[in-house]
Amino acid sequence: MPKRVQVIGAHSADFVWRAGGAVAKAVSLGGQAEVIALSYGERGESGELWKQPGQRVENVKKIRHAEAEAAAAHLGASFTCLDLGDYPLQIDGDRLLEIAEAIRAFAPDVLITHTATDPFNPDHPIAHGAVDRARSLAAGAGVTSAFDTIKPPQLFLFEPHQPELCSFTPTVHVDITSVWEQKLAAMGEMKAQQYLQTYYAQRGEHRGNHARRASGRSEVKYGESFMRVLPQVVGEL
Amino acid sequence: MPKRVQVIGAHSADFVWRAGGAVAKAVSLGGQAEVIALSYGERGESGELWKQPGQRVENVKKIRHAEAEAAAAHLGASFTCLDLGDYPLQIDGDRLLEIAEAIRAFAPDVLITHTATDPFNPDHPIAHGAVDRARSLAAGAGVTSAFDTIKPPQLFLFEPHQPELCSFTPTVHVDITSVWEQKLAAMGEMKAQQYLQTYYAQRGEHRGNHARRASGRSEVKYGESFMRVLPQVVGEL
Amino acid sequence: MPKRVQVIGAHSADFVWRAGGAVAKAVSLGGQAEVIALSYGERGESGELWKQPGQRVENVKKIRHAEAEAAAAHLGASFTCLDLGDYPLQIDGDRLLEIAEAIRAFAPDVLITHTATDPFNPDHPIAHGAVDRARSLAAGAGVTSAFDTIKPPQLFLFEPHQPELCSFTPTVHVDITSVWEQKLAAMGEMKAQQYLQTYYAQRGEHRGNHARRASGRSEVKYGESFMRVLPQVVGEL
Amino acid sequence: MPKRVQVIGAHSADFVWRAGGAVAKAVSLGGQAEVIALSYGERGESGELWKQPGQRVENVKKIRHAEAEAAAAHLGASFTCLDLGDYPLQIDGDRLLEIAEAIRAFAPDVLITHTATDPFNPDHPIAHGAVDRARSLAAGAGVTSAFDTIKPPQLFLFEPHQPELCSFTPTVHVDITSVWEQKLAAMGEMKAQQYLQTYYAQRGEHRGNHARRASGRSEVKYGESFMRVLPQVVGEL
Amino acid sequence: MPKRVQVIGAHSADFVWRAGGAVAKAVSLGGQAEVIALSYGERGESGELWKQPGQRVENVKKIRHAEAEAAAAHLGASFTCLDLGDYPLQIDGDRLLEIAEAIRAFAPDVLITHTATDPFNPDHPIAHGAVDRARSLAAGAGVTSAFDTIKPPQLFLFEPHQPELCSFTPTVHVDITSVWEQKLAAMGEMKAQQYLQTYYAQRGEHRGNHARRASGRSEVKYGESFMRVLPQVVGEL
Amino acid sequence: MPKRVQVIGAHSADFVWRAGGAVAKAVSLGGQAEVIALSYGERGESGELWKQPGQRVENVKKIRHAEAEAAAAHLGASFTCLDLGDYPLQIDGDRLLEIAEAIRAFAPDVLITHTATDPFNPDHPIAHGAVDRARSLAAGAGVTSAFDTIKPPQLFLFEPHQPELCSFTPTVHVDITSVWEQKLAAMGEMKAQQYLQTYYAQRGEHRGNHARRASGRSEVKYGESFMRVLPQVVGEL
Repeated sequence: MPKRVQVIGAHSADFVWRAGGAVAKAVSLGGQAEVIALSYGERGESGELWKQPGQRVENVKKIRHAEAEAAAAHLGASFTCLDLGDYPLQIDGDRLLEIAEAIRAFAPDVLITHTATDPFNPDHPIAHGAVDRARSLAAGAGVTSAFDTIKPPQLFLFEPHQPELCSFTPTVHVDITSVWEQKLAAMGEMKAQQYLQTYYAQRGEHRGNHARRASGRSEVKYGESFMRVLPQVVGEL
Repeated sequence: MPKRVQVIGAHSADFVWRAGGAVAKAVSLGGQAEVIALSYGERGESGELWKQPGQRVENVKKIRHAEAEAAAAHLGASFTCLDLGDYPLQIDGDRLLEIAEAIRAFAPDVLITHTATDPFNPDHPIAHGAVDRARSLAAGAGVTSAFDTIKPPQLFLFEPHQPELCSFTPTVHVDITSVWEQKLAAMGEMKAQQYLQTYYAQRGEHRGNHARRASGRSEVKYGESFMRVLPQVVGEL
Repeated sequence: MPKRVQVIGAHSADFVWRAGGAVAKAVSLGGQAEVIALSYGERGESGELWKQPGQRVENVKKIRHAEAEAAAAHLGASFTCLDLGDYPLQIDGDRLLEIAEAIRAFAPDVLITHTATDPFNPDHPIAHGAVDRARSLAAGAGVTSAFDTIKPPQLFLFEPHQPELCSFTPTVHVDITSVWEQKLAAMGEMKAQQYLQTYYAQRGEHRGNHARRASGRSEVKYGESFMRVLPQVVGEL
Repeated sequence: MPKRVQVIGAHSADFVWRAGGAVAKAVSLGGQAEVIALSYGERGESGELWKQPGQRVENVKKIRHAEAEAAAAHLGASFTCLDLGDYPLQIDGDRLLEIAEAIRAFAPDVLITHTATDPFNPDHPIAHGAVDRARSLAAGAGVTSAFDTIKPPQLFLFEPHQPELCSFTPTVHVDITSVWEQKLAAMGEMKAQQYLQTYYAQRGEHRGNHARRASGRSEVKYGESFMRVLPQVVGEL
Repeated sequence: MPKRVQVIGAHSADFVWRAGGAVAKAVSLGGQAEVIALSYGERGESGELWKQPGQRVENVKKIRHAEAEAAAAHLGASFTCLDLGDYPLQIDGDRLLEIAEAIRAFAPDVLITHTATDPFNPDHPIAHGAVDRARSLAAGAGVTSAFDTIKPPQLFLFEPHQPELCSFTPTVHVDITSVWEQKLAAMGEMKAQQYLQTYYAQRGEHRGNHARRASGRSEVKYGESFMRVLPQVVGEL
Repeated sequence: MPKRVQVIGAHSADFVWRAGGAVAKAVSLGGQAEVIALSYGERGESGELWKQPGQRVENVKKIRHAEAEAAAAHLGASFTCLDLGDYPLQIDGDRLLEIAEAIRAFAPDVLITHTATDPFNPDHPIAHGAVDRARSLAAGAGVTSAFDTIKPPQLFLFEPHQPELCSFTPTVHVDITSVWEQKLAAMGEMKAQQYLQTYYAQRGEHRGNHARRASGRSEVKYGESFMRVLPQVVGEL
């Protein structure tokens, strides 16, 4: 059964490093994927662009949009940015409803976002809180309500850069061996971030090793790790 | 792909209430199931039998064996008891190796046991510790070793009687709707434990409700809940 | 010593299922009880009413008010609704002070609200945060202050629908055997919510069992469970 | 209702500092109290005595016995030592049954012991584990069993010397104002431990302050703090 | 290497009790220290002043400013108050940027604030959240950004009044023996708070004892304890 | 001040991957280092050697000894093995005292061992428990005792292979840039474990990145991460 996968990140590049493989895999299996960025990360994470003399914020956003769109295309996903601003990202009641509406509109089977804690980033926990709450608003209380609701999406947190400091415990490793080249290509679009390209390429190998160790399946070469928030419902163990 | 399911409990009746549905479901899908009891619970949980004048421990064990075997038969599983004694269950180095050998011999895909904490039972945490360690001994260190190893089984903890006091957080709900009658029949073999029959029948409904709420799948009527210990490895989220 | 009990819930029906017994018990012992709802739950939890053609929000609120008032009457409590809106419930600085004022005005011995986490409801954690903070504002810093303060109320969290997913660990079981019929009657007023009536009736039996198990007191038939937030002060253990 | 209070500590002086007030208070209210030490602490905590030339272990134990007995007498409690050895305290299966038997024989309403963690003491966690398990053995599984059982005692952990490093969160403050002089006298018997006398006298004041702050009851001058392990069962909140 | 130490507290007196020693010690070693109060605590903690007939809020603030400034002077630190109001302290987006700017301007090596939890104070957790987030805004994402960033300050939480209820685990004890008289003098400026003067003087002795016990260094007489939030980077263990 | 560093691991190769850099760094600063292995890992981790026809356990141990000794030599440390057996490692009372004696004899400033949890290894948690307890036995209760005691060593846990599954949170990053070549050489002695050589070489880079991010010190190229168990005692923050 092909799945609908929605990734909502604080900044426009977050999805590539942390969920690019899972997105491409779902698409390769016939699914559909949508990436939503709450901001372009234009202030906090675009320093290379600001080194250019006379740089302007609209131009930075334009470049960041193009990069993210190209990366999403490698993975088979669409890309949208709500452009809420970063450093700090601030989300009031109306913005929260806007995010809930985006979830309701796409009606994902799988919804992916940041961890609730990240001592190295002021925007990631804000994004987590909003997406978590927006998900409940879109799915409703499990009874009929005054508004349209969607089937409750499964919620996953993607891997942060320093997992142990973000209370991230991997509970699912996705085998992304068959889409590895696509993830590499998507990461390659983030031209200014060479270190992260190397880091997440190594991370893919490590998570592959972890997946082999947990499953005994020797064919897994590359993995991507996630933390599931809610119980899953299965036909058998 | 049919699965091999192994349940290891401290006392001979533990598996019925807490994993009977998951066992029957796996068997109904073509799998194989084995139940191992570390003891008969002959001292701590067989009070009704001891009310008979002149009762002797060997007779109690015999009755408990028959009940457990009949219950397992309803679920399609075999039943074995290591007869290590209860209240207190004590497991030394040799006993630990015996349990590891039982895991190695059956080579389960899915291994199920108690939670690590249970303030209302002195034997359950001991059983947990031994099974957890025996599993590592049977699966090895993930590299070739001096002894035969098996593919690492997925480890699940079944639902204790007072979940919140045992640090039990359900992470998987199994849909046991199609085998519900079998679980009722298996529980019915535990003739002296009427309260638990009622309680776990209600629990099956509650967990069915929780499963519907988490998944939006309205066809789930009865559920059984488990806590997964190690990351799962999947093809997609 | 008769006690003053105040329950503050996000939606108008929350108090019935989760604290109805404790409220009735306190009143039966000569105490006084007040229920405050932050909203009517008119959007998220009133779906049955919205099925009526031409339904309007004011009418939904009116019906929900009548139901909650009738249920509170069975328990011997008054009912007030602050009508702050639901899905999402939003509480700004002025609203926070309004809640603090309600606590100061009633001066409860016992204050009861939601858990801090609830992955299935976007409003419950918001209610928790506001009540917790409002309680501190009403009780002050433990020294004389610029405003009137009350004796610090004991703070309890009531049982959420899926306790283990809300970090709910019961630390107090209340024996509600003598007021069981009243709780059933109060729940009966929530006519559209048959499932919850059945669920919480069973839950009352289970918690009674847990209370017997923890105390050895065989006369406890029905219980209601709570999580105490702050240390209690006693004359002896 | 007068209560039976049993304190089981790893070493013969532990009960004085940490539960002396609660013991004296229970006795002052008509209860009965028994102190059991698993060892005399003759190796790890009796250094002053070993400074005497020619000191012998039997003499150290004799002196420690006399001190503990005198302290217990100030509080109105009996004192027994199982003399299992310290540094390290080791408890095998037979010793475990001996402790269970001691609990069964006294049939306490209230049972008090160490925290499960103590990075500054190798014997305290061992004592905790044994007492916790022995309690379950004495109280049984909540159903009739092959052996005599007692009404399940309430289990409390007393305050360790460095609470935050021992995961100790106070959940009950006992008002020991009326027996304060008795606790001072009992502590005074531990002649070599002047620092602890001062420390726990100050601690009594602090916990009194905490108790006033939590309850608003200004008459509490001295307190002693405990962590309750299992839910309590009450008539009302 | 002399250090720059910045303490940001919710109310104007918080820094004295909890970080006065660490501030004085840093200054005594050649460092520089700045204290910032988010409010004067004029409503919640200034009750003694409000007992004067005709008291006015501006006068309360003036007195609190003078006390805090005098205390800071004993420690060798400057004192500033952002005067955001207390009970409740409320911090919106603009205020957050103001705090970030204060951190950026001082560029501390060491930044000290409240714990994230404090059930006895509604303003302390708000202060924690703002300082934690402002620190990230000032230090940036670890890459070049659109705004000036500072070297990431080490973040410490100071000791709350009831540590175990605030999830405070000490991870660093500072030896404040050499500046003990200065801390006593600073505390002495808080004339209305005699209890806290006594309490924190005793606390200084206790933490000195804990520091001796952890390190074996007998020369430590007085200590102050902190909880480090982020990993430290060292040349060797 | 040169330091004495002692590493105690379950198997003879554990120290290389996880603490090799910290050992070499301490030695390079004038310190002394001792590595103790509780077993050779001859059964669980020596599979490559067992592939040789006619292989015998004594020969496996001999080869493992030579490798570990050579690796330790690159780091400037001595190597000893207590040879207690692996898979399973079992430690009774006498073995515990043997480990305590080894700690007492070396009197380390810094003691390093495994995490308390490791779902992928049955021996690591056993090693942790024994070393933690042996440390307390060697350091004593903080008062004079019947036996010789040493200054309490600082206790650190080294990084396990899957940190998030072992509750490992790095609290200290050691800058090992200046001894990086030595760590590479030591790892190179473990000829059969090519994967781990690559993995821990990458890990050294990642931890270097984390250390730069936490400290802002750009000169750190390679790091090794540890979790400190007990509070540190410092002259200033």
